Amino acid sequence: MPQGKVTTVPDDGLTTRQRRRQAVLAVHTGPGKGKSTAAFGMALRAWSAGWPVGVFQFVKSQKWKVGEETALKALDGVNGTPVTWHKMGEGWSWIQRAGTERDHAAEAAEGWAQIKRDLAAGTYKFYVLDEFTYPMKWGWVDVADVVATLAGRPGTQHVVITGRDAHPDLIEAADLVTEMTKIKHPMDAGRKGQQGIEW
Amino acid sequence: MPQGKVTTVPDDGLTTRQRRRQAVLAVHTGPGKGKSTAAFGMALRAWSAGWPVGVFQFVKSQKWKVGEETALKALDGVNGTPVTWHKMGEGWSWIQRAGTERDHAAEAAEGWAQIKRDLAAGTYKFYVLDEFTYPMKWGWVDVADVVATLAGRPGTQHVVITGRDAHPDLIEAADLVTEMTKIKHPMDAGRKGQQGIEW
Repeated sequence: MPQGKVTTVPDDGLTTRQRRRQAVLAVHTGPGKGKSTAAFGMALRAWSAGWPVGVFQFVKSQKWKVGEETALKALDGVNGTPVTWHKMGEGWSWIQRAGTERDHAAEAAEGWAQIKRDLAAGTYKFYVLDEFTYPMKWGWVDVADVVATLAGRPGTQHVVITGRDAHPDLIEAADLVTEMTKIKHPMDAGRKGQQGIEW
Repeated sequence: MPQGKVTTVPDDGLTTRQRRRQAVLAVHTGPGKGKSTAAFGMALRAWSAGWPVGVFQFVKSQKWKVGEETALKALDGVNGTPVTWHKMGEGWSWIQRAGTERDHAAEAAEGWAQIKRDLAAGTYKFYVLDEFTYPMKWGWVDVADVVATLAGRPGTQHVVITGRDAHPDLIEAADLVTEMTKIKHPMDAGRKGQQGIEW
């Protein structure tokens, strides 16, 4: 199929121009590499288009994304377009915690609650919910609530969700789903991860 | 398998530290989206690590990567690390053409010849050879030459090659191979590509 050609024309009463402006929900899943990396690559396009970018980083230790974080933060505001980066691991940026105890389930739920507020307010035009499949899988965030919230989000807010084992209901709700499959990985041959490649 | 855990320890006489510094050849292939996008995401990490980045964009029309190009060029030199972007479609940056005729096969061969010169000189530490599987597939660039050149590249120069239908010899030579598979795409439902998402 030539790129850009549609296979069917939907009976939705919209013009091509209107369909071009529809918000996209994308999911990058599967056991291979590149799920988050491709989402951050998409964020480059979004930023270039002048869309405020919000990254919500769930679950993983910070060292794995420090390169992307540094680079995307370096773009923040350069062309007038903001990039905002929130991390669960360090406590979300909008909450100040007095205690030292961490409750990951509660933190994930708080992250999702903030995303809901941002979607309702239209804070960003491009959201990366990085590794968000895991809190959904582990029951920390309600799948039906996620699907309903995303279905009802106002305006044109694009959302990319990454992580293995995406819930079937999320797959069903998504417009664009890509599975990354590992064919070969250096660690299989006994090589270690390295800075610049792995994080 | 926990991330960062190796499954075997190779009998190569190298320390873990030495193995961490080995150059990586990665291939992103398959019919799904995210092959190039993940490569540009990797470029963010490389740039953050202070590695000069060279992008060589083969084949595709420019509009598809303009967002990534704008964003990566915005990073050029910001932390002292250069990002250089070469495009086949517009004529490679290092050649000045008088004529208007285009010979894509010759242009691809010229691109590859320049990459060989850069690898020999150690010009970059991170190379994106975007859509480079196609000139290999079409016989414009010799597969055996590519594999031998990459195998013999000096120092620690990381290379990512993207595109569908990666040649089996390239897969064999690569350290890291990821296949992107399309599960669902908005164009299947009659939606059109849109700026910020598709380019």
